[in-house]
Amino acid sequence: MTAEQVARSAREASNLLQTVTSAQKSAVLRRIKQVLEERREDIIAANRSDKEAAQKEVEAGHLSGSLFKRLDIEGAGGEKFATLLQGVDDVDRIPDPIGQVTMARRLDDGLDLYRVVCPVGVCLVIFEARPEVVVNIACLAIKSGNAAILKGGKEANQTNNALAAAIQHAIATTPVQEGQTPFPERAVQVVSTRDEINSLLDMDRYVDIVIPRGSNSLVRHIQNNTRIPVLGHADGICSTYLDTSADLHKAIHTVVDAKTHYPAACNSTETLLVNNTVLESVFVPVAAALLKAGVRIHADSRSLKAIESAGIAKDPSIAAQVFAATDKDFGHEFTDLDIAVRVVDSLDEAIDHINSHGSKHTDAIITEDRASAEWFMRRVDAAGVYWNASTRFADGFRYGFGAEIGVSTNKTHARGPAGLEGLTIYKYYLFGNGQGAVDYGVGEGKHNFLHEDIPLDNVRDKFVL
Amino acid sequence: MTAEQVARSAREASNLLQTVTSAQKSAVLRRIKQVLEERREDIIAANRSDKEAAQKEVEAGHLSGSLFKRLDIEGAGGEKFATLLQGVDDVDRIPDPIGQVTMARRLDDGLDLYRVVCPVGVCLVIFEARPEVVVNIACLAIKSGNAAILKGGKEANQTNNALAAAIQHAIATTPVQEGQTPFPERAVQVVSTRDEINSLLDMDRYVDIVIPRGSNSLVRHIQNNTRIPVLGHADGICSTYLDTSADLHKAIHTVVDAKTHYPAACNSTETLLVNNTVLESVFVPVAAALLKAGVRIHADSRSLKAIESAGIAKDPSIAAQVFAATDKDFGHEFTDLDIAVRVVDSLDEAIDHINSHGSKHTDAIITEDRASAEWFMRRVDAAGVYWNASTRFADGFRYGFGAEIGVSTNKTHARGPAGLEGLTIYKYYLFGNGQGAVDYGVGEGKHNFLHEDIPLDNVRDKFVL
Repeated sequence: MTAEQVARSAREASNLLQTVTSAQKSAVLRRIKQVLEERREDIIAANRSDKEAAQKEVEAGHLSGSLFKRLDIEGAGGEKFATLLQGVDDVDRIPDPIGQVTMARRLDDGLDLYRVVCPVGVCLVIFEARPEVVVNIACLAIKSGNAAILKGGKEANQTNNALAAAIQHAIATTPVQEGQTPFPERAVQVVSTRDEINSLLDMDRYVDIVIPRGSNSLVRHIQNNTRIPVLGHADGICSTYLDTSADLHKAIHTVVDAKTHYPAACNSTETLLVNNTVLESVFVPVAAALLKAGVRIHADSRSLKAIESAGIAKDPSIAAQVFAATDKDFGHEFTDLDIAVRVVDSLDEAIDHINSHGSKHTDAIITEDRASAEWFMRRVDAAGVYWNASTRFADGFRYGFGAEIGVSTNKTHARGPAGLEGLTIYKYYLFGNGQGAVDYGVGEGKHNFLHEDIPLDNVRDKFVL
Repeated sequence: MTAEQVARSAREASNLLQTVTSAQKSAVLRRIKQVLEERREDIIAANRSDKEAAQKEVEAGHLSGSLFKRLDIEGAGGEKFATLLQGVDDVDRIPDPIGQVTMARRLDDGLDLYRVVCPVGVCLVIFEARPEVVVNIACLAIKSGNAAILKGGKEANQTNNALAAAIQHAIATTPVQEGQTPFPERAVQVVSTRDEINSLLDMDRYVDIVIPRGSNSLVRHIQNNTRIPVLGHADGICSTYLDTSADLHKAIHTVVDAKTHYPAACNSTETLLVNNTVLESVFVPVAAALLKAGVRIHADSRSLKAIESAGIAKDPSIAAQVFAATDKDFGHEFTDLDIAVRVVDSLDEAIDHINSHGSKHTDAIITEDRASAEWFMRRVDAAGVYWNASTRFADGFRYGFGAEIGVSTNKTHARGPAGLEGLTIYKYYLFGNGQGAVDYGVGEGKHNFLHEDIPLDNVRDKFVL
């Protein structure tokens, strides 16, 4: 199939998906879990074959160790595969958002307007070596009634194909009840080449949303090469600010967590901002804890001086972890055990730094002062604003969304960790009895609009669609 | 100021707008109305001067009559200016969406997550000769806490400048209470050249959303030349479908209304789809009514034959209104008294036609059969799906939104007539007491997430931001 045929058949599948029921979607999800279990050995064999090839790439220096780690679908004791299966159940358990009425208004007697949640339509998901994303996204797409076109990293090609084949087989073999719209087989499709992606990025006629999950350069390339809305983030430049009244224990625990818990993640803290009043009392112990955890500190002149004065980096092996920060360090996602440190003279200076250098992802303030916290949280322009918590909490699972399609730094549609809701939109249903706009307004025999809210309680029962 | 300075100062204004109160926004709106009233004569004089210049352009054939009509801000008895003032009150009266908590969840004891509505940020609004848009958008931006950069049509330059100057004066002269953030003067700015727009369309660093209101070519140019999300619509290709059980009176009234009430509007019906079973019984009388109203019918072969057989276009002056349709007529927004007609053999064929030829704006079915209506409404992929009502109802005022920033055919963020909500997004506030992600998971001393919903009733009172 050409890319255009893939896109057109995804659109056709999307049209059919408008009338499948929640029960049907749930049956497909349960069947997917079943087929994945049945094909477990084959899928793991495909993954091992991908890993062997990747191992050679790592040895040749063509592939990073962290990318290699993400490729594995099995886990030491099979726990990654178990998590993958669990993920199907998790999505199945999320309440179906489709068909929910979010606004109901009587415009006039006999003229009722309803705003009803519906799928976005066709999603193009492009991801790098994390094959479990195939299952994750396919399940989220199915649950939300979207058609999905998936393109994984070439390192995981065999695994991706094995997973996608299992999903397609599950869709095709889910029993259809009499009178039901059959679940469209093309609801989940896979493409494998970069050329196909470039063609699909042009097809705003068929594709409604693009979800890139991967490196900054991947996301930026996609953002620069499509008119289709992109849900995701290029950079995750998160900051933590130590305010004048920061509690020492909270500062150490949250900053070390935010930097070291998973440094490659987009929600890791990359910049530490320090109020000058707590340079010795809070920053120095935080820096000592970071250095002990193996973090390289890129310190501005004032924080560098504080580290030196405190003598916490005397040991040559520790001294080797301390650098003078450059301007570039403050707009950079290290994705590693590195942190940039800047001293500020006020809360507002910290806020300004974040609003001009950050990536609107997630930023935290460590303070005992509620007024400062609230000022920071309102003024910082980011998807997540945290008070006394690690930036690492910015995650769909931790937020309790059941599953995550991505983390968005957009300012429209979906922001922050996005779950099923990010794949939905709404449409307006108007029920009339033959009215025209001409019937309303000023003049004899004209009607006035009522604009009465219809209570949403039980509206779903009355409004069976 | 350069375009970059305008954009940067809009961003700075947007940051300050995060902490202005509802009362402040309301005070600014009331002051705007006051200044507009005070400056009424000056504004109308500027508008007359614009109209005189435009009249010459119309005479020279450089400007269309409908564009000229939209330029007027006064109205025959001053009623357009009165509507403009009324519009300020209308926006003031809409409940403030900012600060609303739309989700609240206890992740753990002492770790609470809130999703709070906030402004999108900086909006760039580009519109053509409808100067009242300056006031409309400025008020919506202020009410929703957004900074706005406005660019109007050059035909309305003097009017736009007079209105913008009044708004800026109102902002600058609204009294500030002690302890309040001053309302930023650069919350509303105006630019006047196309070069500035082209520069601004590149500044996704500062501008969060672009709202074009104008011709297809204006909107398409913008969509093709920016990475910033665009809210609006290029085409308004709406269809009305006459189903097998269409009621004759409802069909005539809604179709004539949808075509003739305001043919230049985006929500006018451009395509009439007719089930072959009602060709004589319903379509012929509808066609007769359309012809009588001066509509030119572009009919496919079967509907053309029905018109001829029925003899409703025998009169030569009426016959001149009937044309054989070309393929192009079905993907075209006439914005005039023209309608394309196609006969279909089934409900699904009508749905397929709309999904492949329409612009996802608003589509109607005329039928007495609820099952057909619901099938149509679910399957048609459009912002508005109507049963027995004119497509002309697709409008923020008719929907009761108080005011409209535009009509969106996007599949993400805002869809259909968009009011204040289209200018808002949310951010996640997390309140902790020093937790790290490492504290959660499997293992000794680790916590489990609670993920308990916090009831939203009264959450706003507890959560004073």
